[in-house]
Amino acid sequence: MFNLFPIDNGVCAPEGFYCNGVSAGLKANSQLDLAFIYADSLCDVEAIFTQNKFCAAPIMHYKEYQEGFKTNFILINSKNANALTGNEGINNIKEVLSTLQQMFPNVTNPIMSSTGTIGVQLPKEKIISAFPLFKLDTKNNQNAANAIMTTDRFNKTIAFEVFLDDGKSFRIGAICKGAGMINPSLATMLCFITTDAAIPKEDMRPLLLKASKTTFNAISVDGDTSTNDTILLLTNHKSGVYHKEAFLFALEKLMHKLATDIVRDGEGATKLVAFEIKGAKTQQEAEKCAKALSQSLLVKTALFGCDPNWGRIASTIGASGIECSPETLEIYFDDICVYSKGKILFDDINEEKATRILKQDSFKILCDIGLGKESFIAYGCDLGYDYVKINADYRT
Amino acid sequence: MFNLFPIDNGVCAPEGFYCNGVSAGLKANSQLDLAFIYADSLCDVEAIFTQNKFCAAPIMHYKEYQEGFKTNFILINSKNANALTGNEGINNIKEVLSTLQQMFPNVTNPIMSSTGTIGVQLPKEKIISAFPLFKLDTKNNQNAANAIMTTDRFNKTIAFEVFLDDGKSFRIGAICKGAGMINPSLATMLCFITTDAAIPKEDMRPLLLKASKTTFNAISVDGDTSTNDTILLLTNHKSGVYHKEAFLFALEKLMHKLATDIVRDGEGATKLVAFEIKGAKTQQEAEKCAKALSQSLLVKTALFGCDPNWGRIASTIGASGIECSPETLEIYFDDICVYSKGKILFDDINEEKATRILKQDSFKILCDIGLGKESFIAYGCDLGYDYVKINADYRT
Repeated sequence: MFNLFPIDNGVCAPEGFYCNGVSAGLKANSQLDLAFIYADSLCDVEAIFTQNKFCAAPIMHYKEYQEGFKTNFILINSKNANALTGNEGINNIKEVLSTLQQMFPNVTNPIMSSTGTIGVQLPKEKIISAFPLFKLDTKNNQNAANAIMTTDRFNKTIAFEVFLDDGKSFRIGAICKGAGMINPSLATMLCFITTDAAIPKEDMRPLLLKASKTTFNAISVDGDTSTNDTILLLTNHKSGVYHKEAFLFALEKLMHKLATDIVRDGEGATKLVAFEIKGAKTQQEAEKCAKALSQSLLVKTALFGCDPNWGRIASTIGASGIECSPETLEIYFDDICVYSKGKILFDDINEEKATRILKQDSFKILCDIGLGKESFIAYGCDLGYDYVKINADYRT
Repeated sequence: MFNLFPIDNGVCAPEGFYCNGVSAGLKANSQLDLAFIYADSLCDVEAIFTQNKFCAAPIMHYKEYQEGFKTNFILINSKNANALTGNEGINNIKEVLSTLQQMFPNVTNPIMSSTGTIGVQLPKEKIISAFPLFKLDTKNNQNAANAIMTTDRFNKTIAFEVFLDDGKSFRIGAICKGAGMINPSLATMLCFITTDAAIPKEDMRPLLLKASKTTFNAISVDGDTSTNDTILLLTNHKSGVYHKEAFLFALEKLMHKLATDIVRDGEGATKLVAFEIKGAKTQQEAEKCAKALSQSLLVKTALFGCDPNWGRIASTIGASGIECSPETLEIYFDDICVYSKGKILFDDINEEKATRILKQDSFKILCDIGLGKESFIAYGCDLGYDYVKINADYRT
């Protein structure tokens, strides 16, 4: 029905999109810290934001635009979250963006997005002083992806060309950042998605929400929810091509890759773990239980130590508040069953096999609650010394 | 109305109570690992247990006794939690306790309590082989308190003599263990309280629940809830003395000291932090918010790094789900205000003062939500490298 091909250039892979990253002196040593995404025609836009009640100034600024507004520009800075900064924080955005529009009269309804330390006013002069470096017809996706990184160890970018049966195609691309303060209720990150698909405005929000549920809303690094979480989807319709199922499929693929990349890059993390819950009574319980596992400090530290301490997994399920019984529960590390319906199968041979699985870069912990038919997969990581190091020293 | 005097001997300070700790070879190097508490007459008993759905075998065994049963014996082992061990786990307890009763015919309705690794069957032979070391008329509180320790760095014991105005007195004492897997919904620990107060059976449970709310239910080390949490209160009525307010006051003092000792001894912790929420709309919201702060990994690692990163505190409040606004919020480190109702007061001078406070062994983080009159204090600790070390290597 349709075919997906990975392509280069991330957020500027779709026709008519441009981007770059420059240094505004926010990060040390002239590192890239200020990015833009520009479209040469006006785009429909949809966004999902953090559920944190203290959402950052850029989010409040976005919400001042009229419902259904169109845009062609996103400005993104790292090192400063512009959160808990009051009216001054919003006024700083307005000053920054109106200066930008004086310099680039084509820019219409610009959106700003920020990540970094909370509770410090935006260094607007530094940001403005870097505008002369912007060339709007640049297509440098690597620079843009690097400029939005904070504690990320690698940049996160992806793009697909989607071919329909009639040979027509559209493109979709994205860049994304996130490594800490990552928790469901929109995982804490910034993600910018561009497409030239002719997706109708009314399809954008439902598809974005649907794809979020099993991707960015299914990951956790540390259980903390930031003030700045943002997913933005921009379309300029330029391909003239749209196929709803194909678009959703591509969107889910794209968001799943970026979301698991965030977990893989979790602060101090050494492995990506899929926590799959099966046999729960309700969908809500499956999700609650999978997320409890992905957030348990004792599970995460055992994973770091490559210790298949399944008792901590069982205990976390029992403490998660869902309906469950030791008589119906089964626990697997990949395909190794260590506990089955009241029976401990954790002999020396199985323990050695499970330990070997835990030494892999990625694996699955499967728990069958045995009481129903609902399932959910949450993605998490281990927690090691480097998480403490990164977050004890973050501001210094 | 009454006076409280600290006294020695913890759980065997009240008249008619005895205890000791011996080595049964569960821990390495002949460390103490098996404790008993014995009363020379039958006691009324009340208990509060974990809310973990997979509660351990000793808890299920306790619940097999008839409501209102009396006891004179508690047997406690460390190193093995006897949790997720099925019927075999309960049968092992019955075998251990009936062997004990054959050896000590005075023992009536004995209670067992366990702490250690989950999901391993009880080494009952080792435990039984240590019974000949028991002398029921021993009063060695230090040995008992040491034998129940797991990753605890210090033992936890306390006792008071409570004098009423008429010169009469009663005694209350306790031992307690806990350092990891500590989270509200009864903080994860074992606590044994003895008293010779003539407290009526019907007062025991309500007073125990009331005192728990602001003590063991207000602490968190890592947000994980164990399978074995237990508070047991035993009274032999021997003093003939009772005064409800005095008893509750003493019980709260005793439980508060032990609960904060657990946090102070939190795995890898270097400081005890009181998270006080004021001005919340409801009592539930005050509690929810205070506990969210005590459990945030980003707050805990910042505290470890002595970084007064108040933005993470604000962000955690915003993400906690309670009603709140940046326009009414105030944040203090002890008496230093760093954020007040939309204004950032975090200048160099205040930052230095706050950093100095964070270097103390214990301090308060006070957040005034500014929307109501309800308050709650949760107790937590920082999270450092040693938490990772202890829990990555726990079973080895």
